[in-house]
Amino acid sequence: MKDDYKCKVDTIDKQIIELLVKDGRMSYADIGKELDLSRVSVRSRVNQLMECGVIEKFSCVVNSEKMGKGVSAFFEVDCEPRALVDVAENLANNPYVASCYQMTGPSTLHMHVLVEDFIELESFVNNELYALEGITRVESHILLRRFKSRSGLKL
Amino acid sequence: MKDDYKCKVDTIDKQIIELLVKDGRMSYADIGKELDLSRVSVRSRVNQLMECGVIEKFSCVVNSEKMGKGVSAFFEVDCEPRALVDVAENLANNPYVASCYQMTGPSTLHMHVLVEDFIELESFVNNELYALEGITRVESHILLRRFKSRSGLKL
Amino acid sequence: MKDDYKCKVDTIDKQIIELLVKDGRMSYADIGKELDLSRVSVRSRVNQLMECGVIEKFSCVVNSEKMGKGVSAFFEVDCEPRALVDVAENLANNPYVASCYQMTGPSTLHMHVLVEDFIELESFVNNELYALEGITRVESHILLRRFKSRSGLKL
Amino acid sequence: MKDDYKCKVDTIDKQIIELLVKDGRMSYADIGKELDLSRVSVRSRVNQLMECGVIEKFSCVVNSEKMGKGVSAFFEVDCEPRALVDVAENLANNPYVASCYQMTGPSTLHMHVLVEDFIELESFVNNELYALEGITRVESHILLRRFKSRSGLKL
Amino acid sequence: MKDDYKCKVDTIDKQIIELLVKDGRMSYADIGKELDLSRVSVRSRVNQLMECGVIEKFSCVVNSEKMGKGVSAFFEVDCEPRALVDVAENLANNPYVASCYQMTGPSTLHMHVLVEDFIELESFVNNELYALEGITRVESHILLRRFKSRSGLKL
Amino acid sequence: MKDDYKCKVDTIDKQIIELLVKDGRMSYADIGKELDLSRVSVRSRVNQLMECGVIEKFSCVVNSEKMGKGVSAFFEVDCEPRALVDVAENLANNPYVASCYQMTGPSTLHMHVLVEDFIELESFVNNELYALEGITRVESHILLRRFKSRSGLKL
Amino acid sequence: MKDDYKCKVDTIDKQIIELLVKDGRMSYADIGKELDLSRVSVRSRVNQLMECGVIEKFSCVVNSEKMGKGVSAFFEVDCEPRALVDVAENLANNPYVASCYQMTGPSTLHMHVLVEDFIELESFVNNELYALEGITRVESHILLRRFKSRSGLKL
Amino acid sequence: MKDDYKCKVDTIDKQIIELLVKDGRMSYADIGKELDLSRVSVRSRVNQLMECGVIEKFSCVVNSEKMGKGVSAFFEVDCEPRALVDVAENLANNPYVASCYQMTGPSTLHMHVLVEDFIELESFVNNELYALEGITRVESHILLRRFKSRSGLKL
Repeated sequence: MKDDYKCKVDTIDKQIIELLVKDGRMSYADIGKELDLSRVSVRSRVNQLMECGVIEKFSCVVNSEKMGKGVSAFFEVDCEPRALVDVAENLANNPYVASCYQMTGPSTLHMHVLVEDFIELESFVNNELYALEGITRVESHILLRRFKSRSGLKL
Repeated sequence: MKDDYKCKVDTIDKQIIELLVKDGRMSYADIGKELDLSRVSVRSRVNQLMECGVIEKFSCVVNSEKMGKGVSAFFEVDCEPRALVDVAENLANNPYVASCYQMTGPSTLHMHVLVEDFIELESFVNNELYALEGITRVESHILLRRFKSRSGLKL
Repeated sequence: MKDDYKCKVDTIDKQIIELLVKDGRMSYADIGKELDLSRVSVRSRVNQLMECGVIEKFSCVVNSEKMGKGVSAFFEVDCEPRALVDVAENLANNPYVASCYQMTGPSTLHMHVLVEDFIELESFVNNELYALEGITRVESHILLRRFKSRSGLKL
Repeated sequence: MKDDYKCKVDTIDKQIIELLVKDGRMSYADIGKELDLSRVSVRSRVNQLMECGVIEKFSCVVNSEKMGKGVSAFFEVDCEPRALVDVAENLANNPYVASCYQMTGPSTLHMHVLVEDFIELESFVNNELYALEGITRVESHILLRRFKSRSGLKL
Repeated sequence: MKDDYKCKVDTIDKQIIELLVKDGRMSYADIGKELDLSRVSVRSRVNQLMECGVIEKFSCVVNSEKMGKGVSAFFEVDCEPRALVDVAENLANNPYVASCYQMTGPSTLHMHVLVEDFIELESFVNNELYALEGITRVESHILLRRFKSRSGLKL
Repeated sequence: MKDDYKCKVDTIDKQIIELLVKDGRMSYADIGKELDLSRVSVRSRVNQLMECGVIEKFSCVVNSEKMGKGVSAFFEVDCEPRALVDVAENLANNPYVASCYQMTGPSTLHMHVLVEDFIELESFVNNELYALEGITRVESHILLRRFKSRSGLKL
Repeated sequence: MKDDYKCKVDTIDKQIIELLVKDGRMSYADIGKELDLSRVSVRSRVNQLMECGVIEKFSCVVNSEKMGKGVSAFFEVDCEPRALVDVAENLANNPYVASCYQMTGPSTLHMHVLVEDFIELESFVNNELYALEGITRVESHILLRRFKSRSGLKL
Repeated sequence: MKDDYKCKVDTIDKQIIELLVKDGRMSYADIGKELDLSRVSVRSRVNQLMECGVIEKFSCVVNSEKMGKGVSAFFEVDCEPRALVDVAENLANNPYVASCYQMTGPSTLHMHVLVEDFIELESFVNNELYALEGITRVESHILLRRFKSRSGLKL
């Protein structure tokens, strides 16, 4: 894309991003005060960072347990190799699936799933996951403890 | 905690959250217009959702590759069981580590790491990860393709 | 179900259960004496515990070896994911199968089997288990030594 | 032991055992009626079956979930071979551990654990299991669904 | 079989067997001298041991390398469970196959193969083994060093 | 060794070996008749085959189950690499161990063990095998069924 | 082949080969000077070493990264055993594939792939590798660091 | 390094490299004729390609089997993570080791070894490899068949 030159991220951009990762609703005026910039200059930089895709969007981080998603599960999904992309796109459309990646290592899909409880998990596994054509083996694990969970950076 | 009764999330709360996940900087006035609520009522609900921890924070989603983090790696870190919590807390303080979880399944730590390139990855592995006491085996995989990566919900 | 409120288990219920786990034929009068309750009160509590399913049934613990079941085997049964529930229900009807569970981890069924000897085991494996459609791989292990085997609590 | 000849289990013994497995509190009079035996003869046979260990005890089957044990977990515990028996005996004394076996296959202990919830599970894993000397690796899985769970026969 | 009572092996039988395992051509007269038995008595005992199958046959132990079988390989052969017995009987007829067992553990066949060299091994693998229907995966290992290889006892 | 030229095995040698593998006590006269050779010539060839090690010894094949060795077990023994040869030599001296090999593949020892029953197996595992220094993990499997077991050729 | 006797490699041949492995363009005159041979004699020996295949060819070692092949990947390709040779020959014709071997161990193909970057790698995996019939599972790993990479000897 | 701009490889460079990969001793005059360049220009380009490291060196490809290296083995070497770099550097100095890499995936070293025969292999494994401190487990596989082995490109 022709505007890629705009994507150079300088030190001031990085400082703005850092503040917005910490508080995504911080006003441009307050950012400006902290960094000794005008409100207009902050807005112009933020707009540019969004245009070239450095900032993908503003969002809020929601606690999945308090939203009733008490069980956080990781899946390794083995597919017939020829079916992998289809299975992955199918799973990406499933509302229980929070993320779905293809990695090096074994030819599995790595998937994160959020469900309310074990009953919903069992139903997801047996009725939605195992029902898909092209899946040959599944390995699932449940989150026991979070030591770090950085928000703001797209994995 | 005594204020847990405030954490009941009703349908209107869910609609507000949905809008804020899509655009974390949407003004309370605009949210009010969309949902037929006053600006004051939106603000009061958002404040309550933050107080009881349903909304953990507002943030912005940054594209790690455009920020120069071109390699996204997943690690399974085997520890001597007695050292696991110490190793996990140590890794949680490492700036390359984006997330670190303890799961059911094998007694490993599941860790996401973002680095600039393979040189930085090799240096992270040999100088920072393998240097930690109590680590017995490591398995690493590199992200090949994202099929879904939902932001806004803490995994 | 509407009667779930009856399922609150208080301290006295727990003491009754403890006595009945130890000796399932202990008379209600003897339980009453031990806990300073009337025989009628004990019976009423036991009936309630059975009605709401806390006590599933009274039974006797039989020594499988002395009943001629000399070999206790554990199986991990890999199925084609779409066939797993059918295979599980089929195995649950097999008289050699003592228990059959679906677990997180690999998409296998976990199964306990009691047979008389190795000849019966080989016959079960080759004629009954391997003959089922939808099974892709089986792993079997034989009990060497029991360190603990708590009866009374449904696993 | 010299009284092993008493352990011959004949067809009538088997019928009595079957009735007692189904209802451990069935009266000897009712068993007698069903099998066309005198009450005295039933009692004498039951006493003999208990003396020679065919019937290990009478008990009641308690629903672990309704007793507040909502999470049923299976562990494979790898030990330094020389520490295996010590670790096993140590775990057998832990109140969370329902059963603990040594199997053929990998030199691990197979263990069933019943806990209230994930917080208790995480605490058991990190504070009680991983703290034991001689444990090198652990694999844990959570029960998703019971297809069969035969009570009455000691596994 | 009705003659099983003849199979009791007493101490003198065991001493005879021990001598014959060491030297299968030792004359009955020499055995008699060593054990203080008549030649006739030795012959009668050996005949009985052969009749009831304790001694399966007399044989000679041949050095496979000096017979031109320079490569000794072990295979783990994964089969579709329903095909396992057919595959095993098929392999048992293959002249390169020295032994073929079904074990507990994974549902594989354990097989020993003796070939002249790597060219013959590659040809056996690609043309004879992989060509069989019902085989899904194979694992092969080559003998590096013999620490013990007891002849005389059927494994 | 200087006498290696004597180890050329010609067609007649092979025919003699074949007869002796089938019946290790066949008289040289009978062999001679079958192959149209003199008794002296057969004896001279057999002596030469023994001198250069083609025939290692004459023996008898004993049925291990009828000798009271009812359980045939295979072990994969993981050692600290530096301890492997010591562990192997130690195990080779153990009377329960029928064979012990070092293979390519994982750095384990492959071992065959013959024991009377599960009690002897459990005792061998916990008291003799796990007690050895330098062993880190063991995997054991029990023989279910023999499809082929060629005697006469040293594996 | 009848000319195999020419393949005896003597000490002088080995010295010549050593010099040519270090510098494949070293002139025969210079080699001669170093080894005290005539230029003609060097040429005649080199020609003979090429004729009988000891020297397969002269080549130059190109740095794959500087040629734009930034990612070096190793693959373990699981095939249906009957399809293995076809898959291997198919992959051998793929320009991204640098080498492809069949090994003992699991029945996989071992393959080295050189690609420009992760985009090309993902495309190779999903469009070329996974699209092949007969492949059941793939495992991939990326080169992190070279400790030794001897050129000149065909692996 | 400041001269990196010289490393741009144009189409003519690529054609020269291709010819030299096929025949590393092709004269610059012949290359020039084929590509319509002067001998001087070819030499100047080759020199530049060597200066900036695109061409690492000229060499000859030697057939390892005809040089008496009949067994080609791959090793996966598990190390204590803290010892991995030391072990790798140690192995890189071992004359039997043809290459040694650190990969993503398990924290093992990937190593290629060339030896004369199985006796040399067993000696390498037990005396040189297993004797190194910091090695915890080794997996070895032997080359059965080469489907492709591209020379000229450093893997």
